Amino acid sequence: MRDFLPADKTRRERVLAVIRERYRAHGFDEIETPVVEEYARLHAGIGGDNEKLAFNILKRGLDADGVRAAADDQSALTDLGLRYDLTVPLARFYASNRAQLPTVFRSIQIAPVWRAERPQKGRYRQFVQCDIDIIGDASARAEAELVAATLDAVDALGLEGGSVRINDRRVLDWMLDSFGFTAEERPGVLITIDKLDKIGPGGVAAELRERGGTAAAVDAFEAFLLRPVTLEYHPFGEVPIRKALPEGAPDDIVAHLVGIGEAVASARGAVDVPLVFDPFLVRGMGYYTGTIFELAHPSVSYSLGGGGRYDGMIGRFLGQDVPAVGFSIGFERIVDLVSEAEAAGAPAIVLVHDRDVPLDELLTLKAAFVAEGSRVRLEQRTKNLKPLLERAASDGYTAFATVPAGATRASIEVKQLS
Amino acid sequence: MRDFLPADKTRRERVLAVIRERYRAHGFDEIETPVVEEYARLHAGIGGDNEKLAFNILKRGLDADGVRAAADDQSALTDLGLRYDLTVPLARFYASNRAQLPTVFRSIQIAPVWRAERPQKGRYRQFVQCDIDIIGDASARAEAELVAATLDAVDALGLEGGSVRINDRRVLDWMLDSFGFTAEERPGVLITIDKLDKIGPGGVAAELRERGGTAAAVDAFEAFLLRPVTLEYHPFGEVPIRKALPEGAPDDIVAHLVGIGEAVASARGAVDVPLVFDPFLVRGMGYYTGTIFELAHPSVSYSLGGGGRYDGMIGRFLGQDVPAVGFSIGFERIVDLVSEAEAAGAPAIVLVHDRDVPLDELLTLKAAFVAEGSRVRLEQRTKNLKPLLERAASDGYTAFATVPAGATRASIEVKQLS
Repeated sequence: MRDFLPADKTRRERVLAVIRERYRAHGFDEIETPVVEEYARLHAGIGGDNEKLAFNILKRGLDADGVRAAADDQSALTDLGLRYDLTVPLARFYASNRAQLPTVFRSIQIAPVWRAERPQKGRYRQFVQCDIDIIGDASARAEAELVAATLDAVDALGLEGGSVRINDRRVLDWMLDSFGFTAEERPGVLITIDKLDKIGPGGVAAELRERGGTAAAVDAFEAFLLRPVTLEYHPFGEVPIRKALPEGAPDDIVAHLVGIGEAVASARGAVDVPLVFDPFLVRGMGYYTGTIFELAHPSVSYSLGGGGRYDGMIGRFLGQDVPAVGFSIGFERIVDLVSEAEAAGAPAIVLVHDRDVPLDELLTLKAAFVAEGSRVRLEQRTKNLKPLLERAASDGYTAFATVPAGATRASIEVKQLS
Repeated sequence: MRDFLPADKTRRERVLAVIRERYRAHGFDEIETPVVEEYARLHAGIGGDNEKLAFNILKRGLDADGVRAAADDQSALTDLGLRYDLTVPLARFYASNRAQLPTVFRSIQIAPVWRAERPQKGRYRQFVQCDIDIIGDASARAEAELVAATLDAVDALGLEGGSVRINDRRVLDWMLDSFGFTAEERPGVLITIDKLDKIGPGGVAAELRERGGTAAAVDAFEAFLLRPVTLEYHPFGEVPIRKALPEGAPDDIVAHLVGIGEAVASARGAVDVPLVFDPFLVRGMGYYTGTIFELAHPSVSYSLGGGGRYDGMIGRFLGQDVPAVGFSIGFERIVDLVSEAEAAGAPAIVLVHDRDVPLDELLTLKAAFVAEGSRVRLEQRTKNLKPLLERAASDGYTAFATVPAGATRASIEVKQLS
């Protein structure tokens, strides 16, 4: 977990403000849930592997005997935990507050989550997620609104050129069925397919054989992966989608994907939509039931976010199935890509004053610059001005002025900090 | 702990944005520390009564035997906890990052804290604090900048008329000495004085006698409280300050208070500064060493925030004394006072579309309104429009339009939501 110094924190808050503003423009409404959720809810089997990474809070009021008595029962020892994602809390929030929400509820959640990962470069135990979700809309409109809002936010950060890889869990299920894998094999096969980018078709087939996958199915799958075909990803539409799949893909699923593409094109006012159909996109979480997507950008090889449909999850809290789909931006990954220029703020001036400037003169001057719309930092002059000004520049200050006793706003000459 | 629905969350974010912007204008720089701090740091005796209210996180990797072995040693059972204030983390942050911070460091922290209070009306276990602190400046400039920034933020929220009650812990100490209380009696006497507003001079004297306070000191104190004097609080300055105190108050402390008043007057461009000297203001925390203040507003009887000097605390982390003073706005108290008008946002429109409007038309229209700077929510028409529009209005939407198939931006008539 990290401290954020002023320059970093300012940058983070500006990036979050842009994302928040774009998501709001697209009709999403921000909500907030407590950082802490009930232990039982965080460990209900929905969170997948993340459940094991939860930080759990010690039950209050347990004395030493109580602790010993609870030692064999985790849920007696802890009653609360820090959330590890924003999806489990959203499902709980929706079930609790449904009566006060619109029929189709479009939520924004911008908030930290915690996972007890082993510390390593680029992984943090506290990190911010920016999630948008649409609950109550089973149509392709939901996916299209999510994709359009996400790409708009990425554009607004000066990261034009983003694209979305898209697939459907039902496509994967159908494909595996058609090759001859059994339903029991599916989860394991998906884990292997998820490595396709890294290990290639040969590696995938080898791993499936090693695991004892149905031999004919592995053969059929390998043959399909190695078939001589040139895939064209643009423009997104029915032809390239069908070309990327085995013959006979179900019409309704293909139509849902095509519908998303048309709607995103309308929202973006462009013919060539930034969607790429990837029949081997898997996404790790077990709760996805339909469309899945990942956000890509030409400047980086890793994904900047992702999401998908999880029509079954809310039902677990509500006892009634409700369609739901979400898209999450990996904030920690995106914030470093935003250029300094996009993250820049209001004018900011350092007033470097002599030691003998009376306090009331100083505060009068500061008030004058504040009233002009500047950020103002007061600094007492040091022998060597350079380190003082360099520090200010690195904190985002853009100008400075020296202030002798008796100075007035009119007598002060403002200089740019280079 | 609470869920925040869209209307509440929007209001909270807008109020926070105003406070953040004003604090930044006054030269404060925002930082962020992790929500979780080390158990030992949270229980080092600095946090006062709040230490007892900390949520502690179960150490990871403890099996049942490990839990039993740790049962008698809280620090073996938990290694981390949720912060209960922003001051302890700030002291730790400053000690960790001092080399990268300006000599006089003005920090903003806007973040939630957690206390396991018994649930009651108006008290929450997770709540947001807005703290500004100045580290490295022992002069009255620090207090004046804090007070000016705080009052400016409160003004910007449409809550003009705020004032700051001010005192100095050294004034209290000197006063109690002069009445004849012993140094050992001080903490208990201060707890009683803190109730003066509620129980009056007679109640204070009675409680001190009950507790066995030095009899002559209690008599002298009671006589002072009941002395025939008309206190004048405006304008703030040496005369009313001395009039409110026993004779012979130390010159340096009075001069520090007067200096704060003059500097705040300069910053506010006003002769009659919104400062009120209150020699019986105590503030609960044990770590205060000098100036203490509370934010008052004519619309409410309780304080909206407070703070003070804690010159000794940072030294505990750094092994070297560093002057520090902070002012915290009680965000949960202030957010409810901000009028709807001050919390209002950008134009927002609901597009109520017929079921047969094609998805691409719908998304084209949405994109057009988004491009115009509106927030846009899509809603499929329901038989009775009223509940749908009422919900939208309560979520902050200000206009609506009905969208039949074939509609274009030009053909759509926007109506105000009343």
